[in-house]
Amino acid sequence: MNEKCGVAAIASSHRVAPSLYIALLALQHRGQEAAGIAVFDEGIKTYKGLGLVSEAFHGIDFSTVDGNAGIGHVYYSIKISIPENAQPSIFHTYAGDFAIAHNGIITNAEELKQELMERGHHFIQGSEEESFAYLLADELKEKHSMEHAIKNVMKKLEGSYSFTFMINNRVFGLRDPYGIRPLCLGKITDGYVIASESVAIDALGGKIIRDVMPGELIEITPNGYKSHVFHKKKHKAYCFFEYVYFARSDSVINGKEVYKIRKKLGEILAKEHPVDADIIIPIPDSGRTYAYGYSSATKIPLEEGLMKNRYIARTFIMPTQKIRQQLVQLKLNPVKSIVKGKKVVIVDDSIVRGTTMRKIVDMLRKHGAKEVHVRIASPPIIAPCYFGIDMTTRQQLVASNKSIEEIRKEINADSLGYISIKGLTKAIGIDKNDLCLGCVTGEYPIKIEGEKLRFQERIEEWE
Amino acid sequence: MNEKCGVAAIASSHRVAPSLYIALLALQHRGQEAAGIAVFDEGIKTYKGLGLVSEAFHGIDFSTVDGNAGIGHVYYSIKISIPENAQPSIFHTYAGDFAIAHNGIITNAEELKQELMERGHHFIQGSEEESFAYLLADELKEKHSMEHAIKNVMKKLEGSYSFTFMINNRVFGLRDPYGIRPLCLGKITDGYVIASESVAIDALGGKIIRDVMPGELIEITPNGYKSHVFHKKKHKAYCFFEYVYFARSDSVINGKEVYKIRKKLGEILAKEHPVDADIIIPIPDSGRTYAYGYSSATKIPLEEGLMKNRYIARTFIMPTQKIRQQLVQLKLNPVKSIVKGKKVVIVDDSIVRGTTMRKIVDMLRKHGAKEVHVRIASPPIIAPCYFGIDMTTRQQLVASNKSIEEIRKEINADSLGYISIKGLTKAIGIDKNDLCLGCVTGEYPIKIEGEKLRFQERIEEWE
Amino acid sequence: MNEKCGVAAIASSHRVAPSLYIALLALQHRGQEAAGIAVFDEGIKTYKGLGLVSEAFHGIDFSTVDGNAGIGHVYYSIKISIPENAQPSIFHTYAGDFAIAHNGIITNAEELKQELMERGHHFIQGSEEESFAYLLADELKEKHSMEHAIKNVMKKLEGSYSFTFMINNRVFGLRDPYGIRPLCLGKITDGYVIASESVAIDALGGKIIRDVMPGELIEITPNGYKSHVFHKKKHKAYCFFEYVYFARSDSVINGKEVYKIRKKLGEILAKEHPVDADIIIPIPDSGRTYAYGYSSATKIPLEEGLMKNRYIARTFIMPTQKIRQQLVQLKLNPVKSIVKGKKVVIVDDSIVRGTTMRKIVDMLRKHGAKEVHVRIASPPIIAPCYFGIDMTTRQQLVASNKSIEEIRKEINADSLGYISIKGLTKAIGIDKNDLCLGCVTGEYPIKIEGEKLRFQERIEEWE
Amino acid sequence: MNEKCGVAAIASSHRVAPSLYIALLALQHRGQEAAGIAVFDEGIKTYKGLGLVSEAFHGIDFSTVDGNAGIGHVYYSIKISIPENAQPSIFHTYAGDFAIAHNGIITNAEELKQELMERGHHFIQGSEEESFAYLLADELKEKHSMEHAIKNVMKKLEGSYSFTFMINNRVFGLRDPYGIRPLCLGKITDGYVIASESVAIDALGGKIIRDVMPGELIEITPNGYKSHVFHKKKHKAYCFFEYVYFARSDSVINGKEVYKIRKKLGEILAKEHPVDADIIIPIPDSGRTYAYGYSSATKIPLEEGLMKNRYIARTFIMPTQKIRQQLVQLKLNPVKSIVKGKKVVIVDDSIVRGTTMRKIVDMLRKHGAKEVHVRIASPPIIAPCYFGIDMTTRQQLVASNKSIEEIRKEINADSLGYISIKGLTKAIGIDKNDLCLGCVTGEYPIKIEGEKLRFQERIEEWE
Repeated sequence: MNEKCGVAAIASSHRVAPSLYIALLALQHRGQEAAGIAVFDEGIKTYKGLGLVSEAFHGIDFSTVDGNAGIGHVYYSIKISIPENAQPSIFHTYAGDFAIAHNGIITNAEELKQELMERGHHFIQGSEEESFAYLLADELKEKHSMEHAIKNVMKKLEGSYSFTFMINNRVFGLRDPYGIRPLCLGKITDGYVIASESVAIDALGGKIIRDVMPGELIEITPNGYKSHVFHKKKHKAYCFFEYVYFARSDSVINGKEVYKIRKKLGEILAKEHPVDADIIIPIPDSGRTYAYGYSSATKIPLEEGLMKNRYIARTFIMPTQKIRQQLVQLKLNPVKSIVKGKKVVIVDDSIVRGTTMRKIVDMLRKHGAKEVHVRIASPPIIAPCYFGIDMTTRQQLVASNKSIEEIRKEINADSLGYISIKGLTKAIGIDKNDLCLGCVTGEYPIKIEGEKLRFQERIEEWE
Repeated sequence: MNEKCGVAAIASSHRVAPSLYIALLALQHRGQEAAGIAVFDEGIKTYKGLGLVSEAFHGIDFSTVDGNAGIGHVYYSIKISIPENAQPSIFHTYAGDFAIAHNGIITNAEELKQELMERGHHFIQGSEEESFAYLLADELKEKHSMEHAIKNVMKKLEGSYSFTFMINNRVFGLRDPYGIRPLCLGKITDGYVIASESVAIDALGGKIIRDVMPGELIEITPNGYKSHVFHKKKHKAYCFFEYVYFARSDSVINGKEVYKIRKKLGEILAKEHPVDADIIIPIPDSGRTYAYGYSSATKIPLEEGLMKNRYIARTFIMPTQKIRQQLVQLKLNPVKSIVKGKKVVIVDDSIVRGTTMRKIVDMLRKHGAKEVHVRIASPPIIAPCYFGIDMTTRQQLVASNKSIEEIRKEINADSLGYISIKGLTKAIGIDKNDLCLGCVTGEYPIKIEGEKLRFQERIEEWE
Repeated sequence: MNEKCGVAAIASSHRVAPSLYIALLALQHRGQEAAGIAVFDEGIKTYKGLGLVSEAFHGIDFSTVDGNAGIGHVYYSIKISIPENAQPSIFHTYAGDFAIAHNGIITNAEELKQELMERGHHFIQGSEEESFAYLLADELKEKHSMEHAIKNVMKKLEGSYSFTFMINNRVFGLRDPYGIRPLCLGKITDGYVIASESVAIDALGGKIIRDVMPGELIEITPNGYKSHVFHKKKHKAYCFFEYVYFARSDSVINGKEVYKIRKKLGEILAKEHPVDADIIIPIPDSGRTYAYGYSSATKIPLEEGLMKNRYIARTFIMPTQKIRQQLVQLKLNPVKSIVKGKKVVIVDDSIVRGTTMRKIVDMLRKHGAKEVHVRIASPPIIAPCYFGIDMTTRQQLVASNKSIEEIRKEINADSLGYISIKGLTKAIGIDKNDLCLGCVTGEYPIKIEGEKLRFQERIEEWE
Repeated sequence: MNEKCGVAAIASSHRVAPSLYIALLALQHRGQEAAGIAVFDEGIKTYKGLGLVSEAFHGIDFSTVDGNAGIGHVYYSIKISIPENAQPSIFHTYAGDFAIAHNGIITNAEELKQELMERGHHFIQGSEEESFAYLLADELKEKHSMEHAIKNVMKKLEGSYSFTFMINNRVFGLRDPYGIRPLCLGKITDGYVIASESVAIDALGGKIIRDVMPGELIEITPNGYKSHVFHKKKHKAYCFFEYVYFARSDSVINGKEVYKIRKKLGEILAKEHPVDADIIIPIPDSGRTYAYGYSSATKIPLEEGLMKNRYIARTFIMPTQKIRQQLVQLKLNPVKSIVKGKKVVIVDDSIVRGTTMRKIVDMLRKHGAKEVHVRIASPPIIAPCYFGIDMTTRQQLVASNKSIEEIRKEINADSLGYISIKGLTKAIGIDKNDLCLGCVTGEYPIKIEGEKLRFQERIEEWE
């Protein structure tokens, strides 16, 4: 199960490891638990470690690592604790050596594993990548062409997946037929790159060619790329949460600029939930672009009224309970004179448990805010996600069992406004039927046992 | 020599170590090379380590550390590499055990050390704190009162200093007569706190009482504080760079709110150097508040057109030369559609070497910016600082030997505007004669061999 | 390829992890590169790390690790650098979850792997254990009994192997039909144990039951053990090097006490190569027991004339070239007065490259030894080992291309005596035809392409 | 307080740091808690760390460290936990920069410190070295010659001390007038060396010149050495424990060879406490040389009946209570067939708490020993040591409050024999009046408040 993760692949006429390192740095926001790079140099060689890219590869001098083909991965999970579980995963098969990096969740992974074991395969990890590798190797063993093999494998896979993978020194990218998770293609000086987000291509000084299409397999070489689109679903199911939360603001996903969408969301939010206020304060850094939009639409002036302590890091373990309780106060400090006597709007991307938002509202009131209005740039999350978002966190979402008025009371705000689904899709600029809105509607693009299907899809023809 | 550093002190009816830890976290921006805490529990006990507060104290559970009096320090320097050189420094004297934390530079340190050695004292570190401790202990040995002793010591000390120190379990703060470096006083639930910046008091949920005055000694106890002001200089010499660069935006220094000053600087900059432009882009995060002010004054809309990769950390060592060269690109990525075809103003606090600014300007042009105008919220730095700023860096300042037009060409900007000294002092709201402007005027508040004195001060009377 | 390694397995009515830890400590001399423990607690859980047992498991509190069945491994190799390559290796198969620990070398490993891949299996590691696991799982999938399955697998395996392994919570030991590597069975308070050497059973306060027999599978439970002997080779091929070098002196292997054999070897060496000398000096610690025997047979007094610096450790990296050159001198220092003017015999187990021995001889001469005679308790190694000894080291053996007289000159000794093969087998007390003497005779018990077979074995009947 | 420690000093025409590193490795047995090296290269530069020499200097390439004069230290203590408390200690005085390494205990250290503080000196560490440095610097400040200054300082110092120290680039060794702790002088290729034990000179391939005499100051240069003997006590007070326990067997101390003394002790022990036994088993490694002597005198054959697990290291922290209890069993395993049915003598240097010895005796009985006789090569320790042995350990000595018969019962031995004081001094070959036997007689060479003086010494004349 690989929730929010980042993948990359490069084929070049020069060493790829240093460039993969840069690409992973640019994708770091998609996963901070582990990182890995696999390159082909005579055989497949793998470098893995726990933590941030800079930690995971500490002490490795990639400028001396040979290999003109390679893939990389950043891992997002609370479950990993040993480097061997990091990706790319390596498999030695009759069809060649495989390295696989995965972003997404194969919803029928357990069935596939059982089927493969019944067929006689043994597993070391039992991972989704292992199932994918064995399915593909079995197809290739039958002397099928790569295209034929991939088509047969895709017929079996359900769920979301954006893979980069190598078979020996051949480098591929593959995106599921609904395009749930992102994947894009770029050109760099000496070759081609595939990555989860366009910022990885930017970081390499490259040029974005286009998104990998839903249902498309792309093979890259130093000199070009070869595409085959297997599935053409009538409707896509792009995850809207990428635009609101996962992706970097400077990425372009499915042809849409994230920054512009976020600013637009702020503007629409202002129209849907206007307010009579003196200043707008973004929650740094997640709420800033939305706040710009809200300010631009309302002309209410923007102030950096909450200062973030950037030294309270991700890996930060507060040494005592007492200190942990003061954490919000320590992380976000109000600029008192800005807040005092003011009607304040605070803007953020989402509310998770509500406890942090409550502390922020109280802090603003304590420092003299006359009113505190909360505006949220995503609709309330009311249902689980099966395609790549950590459910253990999502279950704790305050919106799952509370009305908006109840949430408002809980966070002690004078008013609370979430953007509407209509406003959301308008800002994104993609038809509702081409988005996965499962977690805000409870209707899913793919059949999930016990859940509603968003609409009856016609059985597609395979290309 | 202790350049930019942070100091704190707490006297409480409860354990102070956890609170000192929080205070240092809040002061972390003033020093990231080392951290230390000394508490009095029967004797003085010291905890020191290299790196960020979270690294330096890794594995220490301060919730079990006894002691109701203590001081702390965060160290800023490129020179420290062993924890024993971190502060607080400890000395066992005939007058008791001393712990000393220092922010500032004693300009006659070497003379004082020679004098003390001639008087028969031996040094382990040879540090400025050691000289301060020995001078003070000698005075106290003569059975002088603390006030008398401190006055005699201050007569000898030249330069800038904000000390927090302990003598056994007594806790003090001391600020030099010119008030060059900041120091402030606050009340927390169970006692009193002295710290470099008010954000440390905020982080403790405390209340700011006031700044420690130039030339003032304050002793804090769990129940109150006792003040003695020794020197009243006719003119102060508050370092203006605290407002522009060193301090956190949410601090209040010498009674002035840093955030408001920064926004005002942006507004004045807009008036002094207006421009016909489409959008304003702050350099994140240093230029943001200035950009808000510039936008507010000009009504040119603000856009987050440069996205910062927050995972490229301070301690980040790029593993290869090739990657190092791409560092700016990796750290700051333009949002292309925002920039394309636009006349852009970028705003920042200062220009150091100019190489980074040049890369940013080029990057914006490459992505289609029609014009790029650069606005800087401090005057050009043209002279050294002797009171607390690292000269090895400052010498490399592009303004030290180039005209503004030459700098503009070097950074490839369409126009370049620095704020004037008049605009600077107006934004700060403190009389020019009460600020140290040495590095932008070449005239210093204290006699420095070979440099100009800002004006002939009358000899003050000691209180 | 798993050269000298140590394996252990325990089934108990209590937690086995602490006992496995002790067993591995007792087997530490068989491998210091990595260590691993796998226990069954609902599923198979694995703990692995690099270095000594104490380093590999640093920070793990085994007293809280549940599981009443488990196996362990210490790894000897110069090749391992990441913990995931440590053993036990884990495999998820249709027949259950496997954990495997291996000592020995499967000589047809590559062929087996190819065959398995052609059969459709994919490999992650490509290791010998992986082939063993897949062969066995395939057999078990066919609904064969464990005994039937193991027999079929053993028919395919060639080379040396002493395995401990688990299938889910069942615990087994398996020794190759020639019994090349050791394996023994013991009883502990709450269960049963299988280990490479009897010292592991001693360390657990247990009782040695007997050796696992060549060609025997033993399953242990908390209450007993079940044995099945599949192969009865007419002749065994116990590795003689276990007695001379690998095993601990306090072990009992194949019913023979190592300490007694070593003392006896010293006595026979004395008879085969007597000398007129004043004192006998053992090379500490490897030569000591041989020297006792030599002294006991000749009545020449024993002196600890060479003192070992025990702080120059295995992992010791001498920081400069100059220091590296002085390493022998630093590791072994002569007691001058003991050596001066004396005719000295020095005794050791083997000569590898000869450079160290040369330095020792020179050092003794420098300190006044009148004569230096060298006695070696193993025959000259003249041929490679294919069943578990690191060839990269053995190829450098001085005896492989030099006469004994040439070696004597090279090490600057007055005389040099190696024990004869006859003396060796007599000391061990096992028939020559039941020992593997390949590396000292060039004749091997198992067919190796391009090498001589020791004698034509009759085709055995399977039990 | 510096109990068992090792000191070294080198003056050379080449870099001394690599040689100091080797010298400290050779002295490692005298202290394993920390290590330090100070060299003079323009100023005094110091390298310190915790743990073994190899750990403390991990990552330092001494081959690049300049400086032709230097001293080193290995630290023995249970108290040190931060590198800054390691030695050499550095002091900046009016008389120059000092680096000091110390072995011994100044018994009037606290009085000296008080006196110095009253005189106006301040202390950072409050250590004995700091007092020594300040006393000496004060003398030198008075323009006294080095000889005159040292004489005056020695008049004030009481207790044991073997110092190596530097004043700027001058290198000295100094030994207390009783010669309690050892110190010796040697010649190496490019200069001279002073060290705690002669093995350091051996390790450097050097030549031992002689012991530094009690009460002697030696200055070494690359070309020679200059001596001044200040005190000539009628009687020396060489610590006998150096011969029995502290020193390495291959050292020569006060002109006496440790190995020969130890063997002789074994022989005398045999005569004083003969026994009818079948075999002698040394406790490895401490009892071995004594056992050789015992065997040589009695002709009872020696057997390595107890095998030591060398991987259970000093720094080894047993992860669970259960494992800790099995520690002796794990560290020392009997060779069963050797022990079975035999009357065994075991020989060691001392008995500390008796618990380990009891476990060894029980273990031998469990494996069939018919009788177990214990022989100890030092007299029972009945009184504290004030000059350099850790009392916290010594207080727990079983002999301090038990008769020999009671100890015998406690350790479950058939007989127990300690060597007599007469036998001890005879083996050492030094007159009783020239040894410190305080801990076995309760009479001390130096006045200790509340303790008996060994005999009334005449007041010596100073040279």
